[in-house]
Amino acid sequence: MLSKRANIVPASPIRRLVPYADDAKKRGIHVYHLNIGQPDIETPKQFYEYIEKYKNEVVAYTHSQGILELREKFSEYYKSWNIDVQPDEIMVTNGGSEAIMFALGVICDPGDEVIVIEPFYANYAGFAAYLNVKLVPVTTTPEEGYRMPSYGEFKKVVSPKTKAILFSNPSNPTGVVYTKEELEVVAKFAKEYNLTIISDEVYREFTFDGSKALSMFEFEDIRNQLIIVDSLSKRYSACGARIGTFVTKNKEFYSAALKFAQARLCPAETTQYGALGLLEADEEYMKKVIEEYKIRRDVAFEEISKIQDVVVKKPQGAFYLAAKLPVVDSEEFIKWMLSNFEINGKTTMVAPLSGFYATPGLGKSEIRIAYVLNAEKLRDAILIIAKAVEEYNKSK
Amino acid sequence: MLSKRANIVPASPIRRLVPYADDAKKRGIHVYHLNIGQPDIETPKQFYEYIEKYKNEVVAYTHSQGILELREKFSEYYKSWNIDVQPDEIMVTNGGSEAIMFALGVICDPGDEVIVIEPFYANYAGFAAYLNVKLVPVTTTPEEGYRMPSYGEFKKVVSPKTKAILFSNPSNPTGVVYTKEELEVVAKFAKEYNLTIISDEVYREFTFDGSKALSMFEFEDIRNQLIIVDSLSKRYSACGARIGTFVTKNKEFYSAALKFAQARLCPAETTQYGALGLLEADEEYMKKVIEEYKIRRDVAFEEISKIQDVVVKKPQGAFYLAAKLPVVDSEEFIKWMLSNFEINGKTTMVAPLSGFYATPGLGKSEIRIAYVLNAEKLRDAILIIAKAVEEYNKSK
Repeated sequence: MLSKRANIVPASPIRRLVPYADDAKKRGIHVYHLNIGQPDIETPKQFYEYIEKYKNEVVAYTHSQGILELREKFSEYYKSWNIDVQPDEIMVTNGGSEAIMFALGVICDPGDEVIVIEPFYANYAGFAAYLNVKLVPVTTTPEEGYRMPSYGEFKKVVSPKTKAILFSNPSNPTGVVYTKEELEVVAKFAKEYNLTIISDEVYREFTFDGSKALSMFEFEDIRNQLIIVDSLSKRYSACGARIGTFVTKNKEFYSAALKFAQARLCPAETTQYGALGLLEADEEYMKKVIEEYKIRRDVAFEEISKIQDVVVKKPQGAFYLAAKLPVVDSEEFIKWMLSNFEINGKTTMVAPLSGFYATPGLGKSEIRIAYVLNAEKLRDAILIIAKAVEEYNKSK
Repeated sequence: MLSKRANIVPASPIRRLVPYADDAKKRGIHVYHLNIGQPDIETPKQFYEYIEKYKNEVVAYTHSQGILELREKFSEYYKSWNIDVQPDEIMVTNGGSEAIMFALGVICDPGDEVIVIEPFYANYAGFAAYLNVKLVPVTTTPEEGYRMPSYGEFKKVVSPKTKAILFSNPSNPTGVVYTKEELEVVAKFAKEYNLTIISDEVYREFTFDGSKALSMFEFEDIRNQLIIVDSLSKRYSACGARIGTFVTKNKEFYSAALKFAQARLCPAETTQYGALGLLEADEEYMKKVIEEYKIRRDVAFEEISKIQDVVVKKPQGAFYLAAKLPVVDSEEFIKWMLSNFEINGKTTMVAPLSGFYATPGLGKSEIRIAYVLNAEKLRDAILIIAKAVEEYNKSK
């Protein structure tokens, strides 16, 4: 009686190993969670202050596109990033997740195709399956540092059914920050084939070593075929607020998404006010957060590099690092690590990267590390991975 | 470049007339909003108390199925209504809206059909279009008080593509509370044709004159093909919390919905804690609310009945009343009322009922009144409708 789409939707590769971690915890093992992009950084106090400040006697529906005051604040924020959009070009969504779903729904009918750069954010596959959209991957590799594919690579996969390109920059899961030249490949390709660009820019602030995440908005001639997906989850360590945005200058896209938005009424009123507070957080907050992540990135990269035969390049953004380990099947390895391995009562959980690929069989030796713990814990957690790799390969 | 589904999704009939109301307000007219189910009743204080109480340093993701403590509270609540479900048979959703979308996604592929009893909650059409599901209506009429269609009527519309029946009890928009005999028609029909029942029971508490809203859970032999959709929005006047539930004893349905849920990560953490507070609200709160709505129902029915040639039966539940007015096109009439009519600087907005039908042309003279204002305002608001009908028909 189940639908086909229910069967096709993959279980989240980030969450499906949770039962193994739960079992480890039951055995009294401490598990370092590097598997999910849930930061340990404190959420700005303004979140609760604004909820308190805007407390209403009746917790009511808001406009479906979100509270005007919040969209005005977002508009200011985007302008500070050189993304010139008005409040009526911004829609508040239930996290970036819903913004992606709206974008796919606006552009694609069942059977239509969307090009993704693999490895990609795993939940894209879930949204696509839910809406019967086919993800068509262009592959990148750990050996080449997961850099942007060439124009020719994109051209190979385009078909009459191709409607859009969906990708994230900085990239989840690889931490790559694309250069202007790399992004230009996407812009030109989209222009040439009249494709919509769904640009997931939620990690905009998270860049290191002077690299800068350019928005696809930079490319003027594709602005009318651009949807930017954004979220406050990572920026302000407020994943549980579920506040994202769907941003577009294309009025048709906006009106269509608004109809979807009206059907589900509105995002949570309460956390929209909280979000208003988040956007008031001072720049100091963000600066400190980025400094902290840079330290972590350095530690994570240093430690993971020590593993013999690992393939890893230094990531420049987001808070992820993807690496190829000298193991045949990283998912089996992670299960084993959670079930059979510990150092001083501790073990580590990371995400297997195969779930971030659409091509079957790819990414099997790769993992994603979310460096969301402080430097000391992180060092310990990755040391555990290194030792585990040794033991695991001995045990095989 | 827009998808077909984006074109098919109807604009919300409840929200699409908002610009006319906004214009009226700009002209200094006070608009009584009887068009949307947004109650004026105070949300229980526990909502904010619990948000404060469970305030975390990091506003983090929760489990995708919702916080365990909240699902435990829901389980207790359902048991008190004779709906025997465990926490792992309850999923917390972004309002009842998301629960309906999960249900449709779990059961239906593009092109599949779902039977609805029209007039039905208008947003069902939006969700169905988004997921390429076809709603197949069985019609009820104002003259017959919108009662449950016969088994024979259901049988007429069933096809090999029919996967489910979706309906609400008490009914939005008609306020009908179905009897056990009427619900048995649905249960038998679903059993006979092996259809899933998606039972929208969000107005469970809102019944008057001793009538009782039975859950479809009462029918033991269809429990494994039942999904109950629920929401705290109306019960606790907390529409902006966006907390609903997807409830099923069918493990396949639950696992499939959980995969959809994992892709979108979780409902807002903050309002889940608020919801925990709501479920602590004492029974006195609910009693008072129902008493208040009974008074309003009586006033609304009394006043609307005074209109000459109106067709209306006394509704027994929810907080809606559907009526057939002596106007050819109620949507035009409502626009006219907002644009050209006022008494002492006031006018009234209601919802045109045509958007609650799937059959083109039906419901054109009908309206839905949400009696979400206090008795005095409600009387004034409906008096305005009565006078407006007179004037409107003179002006034609």
